[in-house]
Amino acid sequence: MKKPKILILGAGYGGMMTATRLSKELSYNEAEITLVNKHNYHYQTTWLHEPAAGTLHHDRTRILIDDVLDTNKIKFIKDTVAKINKDDKTVTLANNGELSYDYLVIGLGSEPETFGIPGVKEHAFAIRSVNSVRQIREHIEYMFANYNNEEVKSEDYLTFIVAGAGFTGIEFVGELTERVPELCEEFDIDRSKVRIINVEASPTALPGFDSELVEYAVDLLESRGVEFKTNTPIKECTPDGVILADGTEIKSKTVIWTTGVRGNSLIEESGFEAMRGRVKVDPDLRAPGHDNVFIIGDCALIINEEINRPYPPTAQIAIQQAYTCTHNLKALITGSELKAFKPEIKGTVASLGGDEAVGVVGKKKLYGTSASAMKKVIDNRYLYLLGGIPLVLKKGKLKLF
Amino acid sequence: MKKPKILILGAGYGGMMTATRLSKELSYNEAEITLVNKHNYHYQTTWLHEPAAGTLHHDRTRILIDDVLDTNKIKFIKDTVAKINKDDKTVTLANNGELSYDYLVIGLGSEPETFGIPGVKEHAFAIRSVNSVRQIREHIEYMFANYNNEEVKSEDYLTFIVAGAGFTGIEFVGELTERVPELCEEFDIDRSKVRIINVEASPTALPGFDSELVEYAVDLLESRGVEFKTNTPIKECTPDGVILADGTEIKSKTVIWTTGVRGNSLIEESGFEAMRGRVKVDPDLRAPGHDNVFIIGDCALIINEEINRPYPPTAQIAIQQAYTCTHNLKALITGSELKAFKPEIKGTVASLGGDEAVGVVGKKKLYGTSASAMKKVIDNRYLYLLGGIPLVLKKGKLKLF
Repeated sequence: MKKPKILILGAGYGGMMTATRLSKELSYNEAEITLVNKHNYHYQTTWLHEPAAGTLHHDRTRILIDDVLDTNKIKFIKDTVAKINKDDKTVTLANNGELSYDYLVIGLGSEPETFGIPGVKEHAFAIRSVNSVRQIREHIEYMFANYNNEEVKSEDYLTFIVAGAGFTGIEFVGELTERVPELCEEFDIDRSKVRIINVEASPTALPGFDSELVEYAVDLLESRGVEFKTNTPIKECTPDGVILADGTEIKSKTVIWTTGVRGNSLIEESGFEAMRGRVKVDPDLRAPGHDNVFIIGDCALIINEEINRPYPPTAQIAIQQAYTCTHNLKALITGSELKAFKPEIKGTVASLGGDEAVGVVGKKKLYGTSASAMKKVIDNRYLYLLGGIPLVLKKGKLKLF
Repeated sequence: MKKPKILILGAGYGGMMTATRLSKELSYNEAEITLVNKHNYHYQTTWLHEPAAGTLHHDRTRILIDDVLDTNKIKFIKDTVAKINKDDKTVTLANNGELSYDYLVIGLGSEPETFGIPGVKEHAFAIRSVNSVRQIREHIEYMFANYNNEEVKSEDYLTFIVAGAGFTGIEFVGELTERVPELCEEFDIDRSKVRIINVEASPTALPGFDSELVEYAVDLLESRGVEFKTNTPIKECTPDGVILADGTEIKSKTVIWTTGVRGNSLIEESGFEAMRGRVKVDPDLRAPGHDNVFIIGDCALIINEEINRPYPPTAQIAIQQAYTCTHNLKALITGSELKAFKPEIKGTVASLGGDEAVGVVGKKKLYGTSASAMKKVIDNRYLYLLGGIPLVLKKGKLKLF
């Protein structure tokens, strides 16, 4: 009997964890499993604000795929997905031709959501990958290095605009406040000349978060010199900075765009019905009308029925989906029953740089060092699920306080 | 009796060493000495190719002035010289008004010589100061960081053009060959994609140097991947690279200009007769017709009578001039006899990166690790003259092999 072919696209939280689980749940004889990913490494998207600011080396946020995955059991192909031909049950790769599958797992992640604002794609940076955050780190350093070389010194080099005060925006701003004093010393620049401006269209930072925690975060970041501009939509991004809805210009050589993500546009290009790259999947995580296609992570839309709104796409949900997806793949192969995905939101913690964070775990609000320690526990827990104790020791955040 | 005022402009090799010697040779009652410098630190120009490439931190090449100078005895003013009013015996500073003097020592250093080639000032970098080399280091890193973020990857990011294969050009290229493999690893780039091109108008690299040593240097650097283009004048420097005299374009985002220096243009602006910012000083180092003005270092032109050509301006000569200048200032104050400056060329060593160098010391040619060790001895010797054993221990190059 021919072994069924399982093809996993993307080695983000969802795809990587599905591959890891499948290698444990299925024997070599039960399926032929292939994982395709653009890079030969997996990276932790939720940590990327740190290497972007330069407070953590990017190698700490990435894991070579063959370091944690049994590549005797799962075939790994380093390539970019060009197209999903769902009617033919094949996937076209950019360089290595075509792959056929019996079961497909789409975990192709997200793209920055620009809301069609002009100039964002061309002039702003996004915290989205190891490559992009290395570039942000170096760009920031370069701006500091340029400043003292100008005959007429321009403060634009030292003005950093972060668009969006959501989770990523706030976490990045927090790291930046930790990094800026180091950069000031390295490049002989007075701290008072550096501006960090966090611009948010909503009336508040961290929209949707507990208001007491928001206040704690904003007060703390303001005390470190961050300027918040809430209720302030951005109309355009230019090579010289941003233009606000009211026409005001804020000049800056550095705009970091963190106003959220949409699903991978390959989803729409491949003919799936989607909203901003996200497919409203069936309870068992399959794409409606496609019995052999699972969609997980940032490309999957799951409705929180308590409030009738989609869950925000998070690492937490993607990891939980990987477990359900693994179970359901196994069920399809062995002919047992599929189960429905049910997210269990354990909590959310936003780091604020240094030993500071805010968050909710269960029903409990956390501040300061206890929140920061919890954040590191969450980060380490994921490493444990992925690669056990050895990976925690190698890449973990072990200094909790 | 009023104490004579000695004013020293510039804390480069000449000015800094003159200040140091004067503080030892003259008592507090004999003169009122002031040193003016743009920065509150002195830096070692001859080391700057290292921080420019990123192989040594720039702080290793600079010394806080009040760390080595007795600022109770010598007044230090951090300011930029705007104008020398030699007829009024005053100097105008950019920020702190005017200073009067009885004796002036001009050690204002050099500027890059562009030979009027269009675009050099706008589009090329020069290895000339702590600020400029920090910028070069960061620029190079930024180019590596950008490469993998482009949809259509451009090799221009990874092409580095060094204009000039003289001393600085060769030393910088040597460091760059050491640095590039590290950058390739840091930014996930294949070494074979990186080009280092050294363009020189003369028929040979290191023009004027012993031909056997030149061959050694070129062979070594070629073995590390450097492409030499000798007999190749550059016609223009553009935002996209350089255009050679024959019209060929070499595309690159990074051009480092090292084709030599001229004296500070303040020299001509202040009415001294000069050739390319250098004054042909009297044997006692005074400016012709100005009994109270000494000019040393890169702004002084000294003829090597054996070959009837000027000595190239080097740290070695500047330091020796500082000793003569100090003697002659003391002679003027105490009414004793001035002496003539006579350079004593002890040798020249060019580092090639790592533990490699070539040089002549006395009549002896040196290669490889012995030349490299000698180079470090020379660097340490200067630190010893400036700040004794403590400075050697603090900033010296102690790992000779």
